[in-house]
Amino acid sequence: MKPTFMGASTKQGYAIAARSREIVRSLINEKTKDLTAEERSIVERIVHSTADPEYADITRMSNDFVLRTLEAVSQGKDILTDISMVKSGINKYIGDVKCYINNEKTIEIAGNTEITRAAAAMEVAASEGFDGVVVIGNAPTALWKVMELVENRSMNVSAVIGVPVGFVGAAESKKALEETSIPNLITQGPKGGTPVAVAAINSLINISRNKR
Amino acid sequence: MKPTFMGASTKQGYAIAARSREIVRSLINEKTKDLTAEERSIVERIVHSTADPEYADITRMSNDFVLRTLEAVSQGKDILTDISMVKSGINKYIGDVKCYINNEKTIEIAGNTEITRAAAAMEVAASEGFDGVVVIGNAPTALWKVMELVENRSMNVSAVIGVPVGFVGAAESKKALEETSIPNLITQGPKGGTPVAVAAINSLINISRNKR
Repeated sequence: MKPTFMGASTKQGYAIAARSREIVRSLINEKTKDLTAEERSIVERIVHSTADPEYADITRMSNDFVLRTLEAVSQGKDILTDISMVKSGINKYIGDVKCYINNEKTIEIAGNTEITRAAAAMEVAASEGFDGVVVIGNAPTALWKVMELVENRSMNVSAVIGVPVGFVGAAESKKALEETSIPNLITQGPKGGTPVAVAAINSLINISRNKR
Repeated sequence: MKPTFMGASTKQGYAIAARSREIVRSLINEKTKDLTAEERSIVERIVHSTADPEYADITRMSNDFVLRTLEAVSQGKDILTDISMVKSGINKYIGDVKCYINNEKTIEIAGNTEITRAAAAMEVAASEGFDGVVVIGNAPTALWKVMELVENRSMNVSAVIGVPVGFVGAAESKKALEETSIPNLITQGPKGGTPVAVAAINSLINISRNKR
């Protein structure tokens, strides 16, 4: 597999990514000084992907998040995303990346109940025996559903990257996740989204690959 | 086709999207008061998607951007994206959404030259006779390449959504696009990215659909 650096795979791409990483470091160095090298690397990639240094203030990792995610990812356990956009940003993973948002059962459940398709997709994943890392970049409703399924022992998760975005329910869902015993990465407040989710999981995939 | 509102397609989804739109309006009302109704709607959707009201300050549309994009989109002209993640966020479009980042010719060009794959992908699109709306959510190098191809009359574009993100070259590429005669939407400074690009084009697709 061709080596990549922060998503870049050409000479020009590497040069841009390397210069960007330097700038990011200079912007968030002080804010990340108490993090481990791996945590700092994850936060740097999130700031690189969003060009928004505020993510160094609001990104939080709990319950051995890095350790648990690296264990799962190094074993090639499944990754589950809430929406297709997050799935399509995850690259060079040795395992499967799953997304049930357009699954027939998901559409049927969402049509017959009051829940969103993103939440219904989590039920479908659980019913198919999902076991791995959940990556939620968009929908608070999906994150609430994952917490409910884990609480009910209906779903096995190694870790949850929970960074839904928005002014309605996102902050509350992330705060709730942080208070569970699930290994998790969240962003405090309304901010988050696909690039944050993708940066976090790709960073961990990359760390895992470099350890082999 | 099932009606949607800001990407939501279920009752719970609609309620969240509607409440979010209200909050977004209250946050950016003053900043967007000089925009047309359509421009305001685009900016609202960008802020909704990022939970970042700063986008109301930095989003700029020039050269009859809304008019030209709506003309193209209502005719179902092709949409070209720089990366797969942007493509996978564009939904319910009557035309084709193209992305050449993983195309064989793209990989060959990027391998043989110094340019990035995202830039090479724009060359491949031009060589295949692309004519439509270009949506760049990630790579400044792709945006520079589109400007070069248009300047050389090697590519026909109706409009360009140019919102690459990052601390290296993104701001400069967007400033350059704004100074061309190409109908364009940009975000000033380093911020931008996939959700911004997707929100802008989906908003225009939605406006076009509601006019029919």
